[in-house]
Amino acid sequence: MVRPTLKDIAARAGYSISTVSYALNEKSTLPLSDKTKSTIRRIAREMGYVPNGLARSLQAGSSHTIGVLLDKPLTTPRYAAIVQGLSEGLTERGLHLALLHKAPAARWIEAVRGYQLDGLIFIGHDDHEVPVELAGLVTKHGVPFVALDCGAFDEERGYSTVDFDYGAGVEMLMTELEGRGIRSVYYLRPDLVSRAERIRERAVLSALGERPDIGLRVVPTGIDAQVLRRVDEDRDQQSAYAQELLGRVERALEKDDADPARTALLCSWGADVEVVYQVAQRHDSRFTVAALASGTLTVGLWPNLVYSKLPLEEAGRECARLIVAQSGPGKEHERLLLKPELDPGQPAGTNS
Amino acid sequence: MVRPTLKDIAARAGYSISTVSYALNEKSTLPLSDKTKSTIRRIAREMGYVPNGLARSLQAGSSHTIGVLLDKPLTTPRYAAIVQGLSEGLTERGLHLALLHKAPAARWIEAVRGYQLDGLIFIGHDDHEVPVELAGLVTKHGVPFVALDCGAFDEERGYSTVDFDYGAGVEMLMTELEGRGIRSVYYLRPDLVSRAERIRERAVLSALGERPDIGLRVVPTGIDAQVLRRVDEDRDQQSAYAQELLGRVERALEKDDADPARTALLCSWGADVEVVYQVAQRHDSRFTVAALASGTLTVGLWPNLVYSKLPLEEAGRECARLIVAQSGPGKEHERLLLKPELDPGQPAGTNS
Repeated sequence: MVRPTLKDIAARAGYSISTVSYALNEKSTLPLSDKTKSTIRRIAREMGYVPNGLARSLQAGSSHTIGVLLDKPLTTPRYAAIVQGLSEGLTERGLHLALLHKAPAARWIEAVRGYQLDGLIFIGHDDHEVPVELAGLVTKHGVPFVALDCGAFDEERGYSTVDFDYGAGVEMLMTELEGRGIRSVYYLRPDLVSRAERIRERAVLSALGERPDIGLRVVPTGIDAQVLRRVDEDRDQQSAYAQELLGRVERALEKDDADPARTALLCSWGADVEVVYQVAQRHDSRFTVAALASGTLTVGLWPNLVYSKLPLEEAGRECARLIVAQSGPGKEHERLLLKPELDPGQPAGTNS
Repeated sequence: MVRPTLKDIAARAGYSISTVSYALNEKSTLPLSDKTKSTIRRIAREMGYVPNGLARSLQAGSSHTIGVLLDKPLTTPRYAAIVQGLSEGLTERGLHLALLHKAPAARWIEAVRGYQLDGLIFIGHDDHEVPVELAGLVTKHGVPFVALDCGAFDEERGYSTVDFDYGAGVEMLMTELEGRGIRSVYYLRPDLVSRAERIRERAVLSALGERPDIGLRVVPTGIDAQVLRRVDEDRDQQSAYAQELLGRVERALEKDDADPARTALLCSWGADVEVVYQVAQRHDSRFTVAALASGTLTVGLWPNLVYSKLPLEEAGRECARLIVAQSGPGKEHERLLLKPELDPGQPAGTNS
C-alpha cells in the first residue's frame, strides 16, 4: 500500500518538512504565502496524500472508538439485536464500535486510559454482571462506562446503567393471559437461577397472588450453567437440549390431562419458545405459548403465541447515548429502566 | 479521567521528559543507569502511568483494527453468524473488529490509508456486491481487502474473496429429497432475482434435468427489492409479508391437491422457512420443507425439515485469516469457495 509521507511531499515540492506540515494543516496559524500553500497542497493531492488519522487521534486524545464487552455469541438473537442498536447509536454520533472479547479487566481499562478506546459498554445478561475488579477500576479511574442488563437499577454505581423491567413484563403478560381465559400456567423454569430469573419468579408469584383463579405448575427445563455453556458453544447441543425439554413438557401436560383452551405454557427463556410451541402444535395450537423475554418464533404468524418483548435495540441505542454523555464535561450518570412491550399476536385460528 | 503524562512523571521524578521517555521505552537503546530507569519506572507505576496506545500505533503504523462493511442488520441471523465468525477470527489474531456502516467508499479507503484501519472486509449478499468505486480504489491503492459472498469466485480480483457454493448445496439437497421419495417440488421463488438467486435457479433446473421423476411448481413469494427493504427496516413488515406468503403457498397446494408424502416445499430464502413450515404443520407436518440457505427453525426439532446449511461462521473466520494474509509481506490473494453442508434432521414422526 503506497502512503506518501510529509517527507515525500517535501522532497517533491522542494520545501522543508515543517513547511509542508504547516501548509497541510488547516488549523496552522503560521503565515505562509498562498502560492506556497497552494503548490504544496496540489502536490500532496497529486501524490494521493492522506493525513495520518492516528496522528490526528493522538492530537485529539480520542480514538472515536467505543469498546463493547460481550461474552456471548452474536448468534443468540438477543445479543445481535443489542449490538445492532449500539452500532446504530454510535454511528449516529460519529463513533466506531469495537467488539471486544474476554480479557483481564485491567487490559480494557488500559486501552481506555491509553487512548485506544474512548469508553466501554458492558453487555451483561441474566447470570452475568459487571465483574467486581472491572467495576473497581472503572470507578477508580473514572472511565466512561455503561452497563447493560446488569440489575443495577436499584443502586447508584460510578457509571451509567440500562436495565430491563422484567417484573413489569411479567405483570403485563399475566394480565393478558388472564384476559384470554387462562386458568393454568405451566412455568418452564431454568434450573440455572440467575438474578433476572429471580426477578421474574418473584413477579410470577406476585401476579398469581392477585389472580387466585390461576393455578401454577413448575416444569424444570433442566438447563443449568453447564448445559448453557454447552449450548452456547456447540449449536448441535441446542437440538439435544430441545429434545429433552420437549419430553419434559409433553409428560407434564399428559400427566395432568391439561385443557389446552385454559392452559398457557410460560417460557422464562426466549430460546425455549421454539420447542414449547412445537408441543402446542401437536395439540392443534390450542395451548397458549407465552414468553417472558420474546422468542425466536414470529408472533402474529403462529396462533396463540404471546410475548413480553424486551426493547433490545432501544437499549443498545440508549447505551450509545449514555456513553457519550459520560465522556462529556457533565459526566452525569443515568440509570435507565426500560419497560418491555406486550407482543400479543392474535387469538387462535384467525390466520388459519 | 486521570491520565498522567511523561511531563507529569518528569516533574515528579526530577528528570527531563526525554529521559523519562527513554526510561519507559523498553526498546530504547540509550544507556541510562539502572537506578535512573528503576526510579522513573517506579514513579510511573505509582502515578498509574499508561503508555499512549495511539502513539504506539502511530509508531507501528498499525491500528490493529479491521473495518467490517455490512449494510444489513445483525438481527438477520445470517449476518450475526458471519460477524461472530469474523470476531472470533480477528480476536485470535490480536485484531479488533470495527463495525462500519454506509458511507462513501472513499471515506473507508482513507481510513485505511490514514492508518485508522489495517484493512477492510466487505460482507456482500445475494443482491449486493462490492461497489465498482470501492473495488477501484482498493486495487488502485493496494488496500488489504476481503470480499465475502460477492460471487467473485470465477474471476481474479485485486483482493481475496470468500464465496458459498450455492450450486453444490442445491444438488446435495435435491439428492436428499429424491432419496426421501419426493416427486414434486414447490419452489418458493423471490421476485427479486439476484446473483445468488440465479445460481440457485440454474442449479435447481440442472438437478431436475437429471431427475425426470421430479416435477416442479414455481410459487412466487412476492418479495422484491422494495418489500425486502421494508422488511429489513421494519420488523412489523415481516409478519405482513409472512401472511402474504402463507396464503400463496396454501393456495398453490390446495389447487393441486398435492400429496404431502411426496411433496417438498423448497425455500430459496431461509427467512421463508418459518412461514412455509407452518403450512406443513397444518397438514400434520407430512409435507417436507427444504431450504437452500438454512432457516430460522431448528432442524432435528421439527419433522421433515431439511437444510442446505451455509458455513457462515467458518466464512467469517476465513475472512479474518485472509485479511491478515493480505496485510502480510506475501500479500497473496486467495479465492475460497465454501461448500454448504446438508443438515438433514430426521424423517417424520421420529420425535413425536
